Amino acid sequence: MKATMQDVPLNVSALFEHGRTVHPDSVVVHYDDTTVTERTFDAVGDDVVRLANALRDIGVGPGDVVATLCWNTPAHLAAYFAVPSIGAVLHTLNLRLHRDQLGYIVEHAGDRVIIVDSTLVDTLAAVGELGRLSGVEHVIVVGTATPRLPAAIRVHRYADLLDAASAEIEWPVVDETTAAALCYTSGTTGNPKGVAYSHRSMYLHTLQISTGSAFGFSDADRVFPIVPMFHANAWGWPHAAWVAGSDIVLGDRHLRVDHLARVITELRPTATAAVPTLWTGLDTYARENVVDYSSLRLAVSGGSPLSASLVRKLADHGVTLTQGWGMTETSPLLTFSRSEPGTSPEDAVTRQAMTGHIVPGVRARVVGDDGAELPWDGESVGEIQLRGATITGGYVGSDGADAFDDGWLRTGDLGVIARGGWIAIKDRLKDGIKSGGEWISTVELEAALSEHPDVAEVAVFGVADPKWEERPLACVVAKPGAVLDQNELVAFLSERVARWWLPERWAFLPEIPKTTVGKMDKRQLRSWHEDGTIEV
Amino acid sequence: MKATMQDVPLNVSALFEHGRTVHPDSVVVHYDDTTVTERTFDAVGDDVVRLANALRDIGVGPGDVVATLCWNTPAHLAAYFAVPSIGAVLHTLNLRLHRDQLGYIVEHAGDRVIIVDSTLVDTLAAVGELGRLSGVEHVIVVGTATPRLPAAIRVHRYADLLDAASAEIEWPVVDETTAAALCYTSGTTGNPKGVAYSHRSMYLHTLQISTGSAFGFSDADRVFPIVPMFHANAWGWPHAAWVAGSDIVLGDRHLRVDHLARVITELRPTATAAVPTLWTGLDTYARENVVDYSSLRLAVSGGSPLSASLVRKLADHGVTLTQGWGMTETSPLLTFSRSEPGTSPEDAVTRQAMTGHIVPGVRARVVGDDGAELPWDGESVGEIQLRGATITGGYVGSDGADAFDDGWLRTGDLGVIARGGWIAIKDRLKDGIKSGGEWISTVELEAALSEHPDVAEVAVFGVADPKWEERPLACVVAKPGAVLDQNELVAFLSERVARWWLPERWAFLPEIPKTTVGKMDKRQLRSWHEDGTIEV
Repeated sequence: MKATMQDVPLNVSALFEHGRTVHPDSVVVHYDDTTVTERTFDAVGDDVVRLANALRDIGVGPGDVVATLCWNTPAHLAAYFAVPSIGAVLHTLNLRLHRDQLGYIVEHAGDRVIIVDSTLVDTLAAVGELGRLSGVEHVIVVGTATPRLPAAIRVHRYADLLDAASAEIEWPVVDETTAAALCYTSGTTGNPKGVAYSHRSMYLHTLQISTGSAFGFSDADRVFPIVPMFHANAWGWPHAAWVAGSDIVLGDRHLRVDHLARVITELRPTATAAVPTLWTGLDTYARENVVDYSSLRLAVSGGSPLSASLVRKLADHGVTLTQGWGMTETSPLLTFSRSEPGTSPEDAVTRQAMTGHIVPGVRARVVGDDGAELPWDGESVGEIQLRGATITGGYVGSDGADAFDDGWLRTGDLGVIARGGWIAIKDRLKDGIKSGGEWISTVELEAALSEHPDVAEVAVFGVADPKWEERPLACVVAKPGAVLDQNELVAFLSERVARWWLPERWAFLPEIPKTTVGKMDKRQLRSWHEDGTIEV
Repeated sequence: MKATMQDVPLNVSALFEHGRTVHPDSVVVHYDDTTVTERTFDAVGDDVVRLANALRDIGVGPGDVVATLCWNTPAHLAAYFAVPSIGAVLHTLNLRLHRDQLGYIVEHAGDRVIIVDSTLVDTLAAVGELGRLSGVEHVIVVGTATPRLPAAIRVHRYADLLDAASAEIEWPVVDETTAAALCYTSGTTGNPKGVAYSHRSMYLHTLQISTGSAFGFSDADRVFPIVPMFHANAWGWPHAAWVAGSDIVLGDRHLRVDHLARVITELRPTATAAVPTLWTGLDTYARENVVDYSSLRLAVSGGSPLSASLVRKLADHGVTLTQGWGMTETSPLLTFSRSEPGTSPEDAVTRQAMTGHIVPGVRARVVGDDGAELPWDGESVGEIQLRGATITGGYVGSDGADAFDDGWLRTGDLGVIARGGWIAIKDRLKDGIKSGGEWISTVELEAALSEHPDVAEVAVFGVADPKWEERPLACVVAKPGAVLDQNELVAFLSERVARWWLPERWAFLPEIPKTTVGKMDKRQLRSWHEDGTIEV
């Protein structure tokens, strides 16, 4: 039987028009240094239409790639909606990438236009000096800076373009499977890989994370996405908050903890999302300064594993820290760790520090070495694999076949799934240590060691062992003034992990090397171990 | 540019599997008379799989229509998921229809199988006696009753079928535009018209109503859909609650107010939805009996206009009554009247009594007599028209062309849209009174007259007038023992509506005639006026 429902595609322009027309009086608050600017969705919506027309005026058409090199600003928010709504593709450049990688992805994505913040024109100029802006025809500067760029590139001022553009538009009906936005993964190996979100996936992701099972934003919320908008769609928060009519607080380039604490205290957001490092900083800051985190009904940690000890620390300030897990490849939200009602306080902490349980629209499975699906028993460790309309099925310009297993995305993460779809990540597949046929989790060893009062940083990786195939090597950095002792650390660990997990190999380093995006560089550590730089 | 996202269809089976696997320990509570039965989603999920296999065992295949003639029961819930998940079409029969109409829709939809409650076998038998079950091959009885049916129909017991069926299934991948479910409108004119929801529309509607902008269900909720499951998918609450892992309370056939008050008091639901008549009853009952409505975070009224006075009455019991507006043609939810934060208490009452503002995924416009779109100013009255993936674009077996305007569904409702997408319905288009070129709202006249302490029922409709073209005629029913006076009613009204709205024509009746589904039958009133039965 044929259904009778209307054939209406799921488009980003529909998300935009909903927020603009149903929540015209909600506000976007831009906090730049000490200046707070507040504008209604109505006014910001006007900018979106003008930007869309301005892009058309300089020749942007369906399928053209328009990149942003921007912090969390109203102009970036306008680009989030304007670019896909005219059928073009928004490419959010990760400004923390090395200029070589930036150049690579600008060329690989075929960026024709780049919208850049005044504070980032030098970053863009550095890419230009490498000769990697060859396909770029237009640069639009938000603010007053003048970039040094190859002469062939036409430079525009954002404000001037908008002033000259029409405030009226009829959005095109875009096939929902068309690309709407583009993010590149910051892979620790090889070149970054591009994920092209469709209009359909962005629309569905917005609804999925807007459910009561996830963030459940409404017009009673004031959403402060600390997570940068160049990183995995800022977890989809700008889209979801816009559709819900939540006020949106944008903190520009300011990620210092004192600044964030002040924004939370003064602007009283109900929801915020940040990496564990920033939550650690917000905890420390609040122990020495007067802050008010009481407005937060939703405090989400993501990007790296969250420890139970950090959950407990934030609880001292009345903040219930929860965890979201996602990937660039997955729009990004996969799981969210809100505790079920009736959970005991200590269980709740454990739950909150888990990756969380699967949000509507996502399917997950755990697959063993032999390719067979493992049970959801919370014990069976295997690779977590994902399927759904918000999960990528390939990469730009490559099918990335080895990243998929019968249509399911291989996350490269080792983990377990417990009853009720609670996922706990144990390790990166490539970092997991298989000792005597069983997995040792470097993530859990690192988390346990991090709780030692004298440990500043720790990285664990597997090294060859004649008897067990692999055994863990722990690289530890002492806090300033502290002296670490291997026997004491082993004793400390032995109360926290299984006996056979205890490392026999230890290295004490002045610091852990980092990748360009600030993640621990275990590849570097491995090569230092191989060439003898690390003595054990 | 081609997007890289996975091509995964939006299927009812995905909604089912999410709730079953992510929320296995949530419960379905069945309240039948004084017996409360509680079963986990895990156990109910098992029934769904067995029912799906049982239907296949008796020969049900993709596209076959499986009807239900059921109250709000676990078996009905199982059918909600089992039937569409195997690619068949669920047809929820409105058991309140006259047997002629039931026979018409059973034949029109081509029902092959009917699942019937034991308490409703006589209703089904009556349709059989009309010879209108000719296409029905199987009847599945939930419970122990034995229906008198034509000999050609095979009769099965629900419990026996499930016992014999396998508990393992692999769901087919169903094209998302395929029909998943079928509801017939209870039109006051002509034959009922069928709306066939697609898998896509049911999936999207579930997400839409699950957002924080609408009901925002989570596993902290306990959802009690008083609204019958044969009526417009019970507003989509069973699907949304299942996906969210909310406990689901099913009240079977018991719609008496004392029963409902007891369920709310004893089972402590967080959310419930019912028609204004029942809310009026719940108010009255609570004034004379000890009840506890304090568990309700969400108390939704729908199906008929909600008056501000009823909102105020429920507020006396601590219940914040909100309004949802929907139609069979629209999945159904269109608008929801949750007040924005910072609204004054009296404004909040006004808002709560409005139809509400548009939920994500729905587009609305208001169109004047000349076919031009009117502004969202809260003043310009025109027909409300709708567009979206959860809105029907036709009717089963007919394009219903006059029900559409350039792809938009014509609701047949006269209303206004205010800033922020707040819709207020003023009248049915066919009921609206055009007096001297301006609209008079019968809905508002009826609401104002209902507030008079001696008025039990009221119906207003337009009659021809030599000077103004049309003028309102008010038909009023007095409360038992009360005597109504026309002059007093006019004086009462004149403080509440514009002077030119005041009816000159009044009729005092013993009761207002009703349609088979309990709506005021204005067609009957008009004919009584024409043939002189009503004397003015």
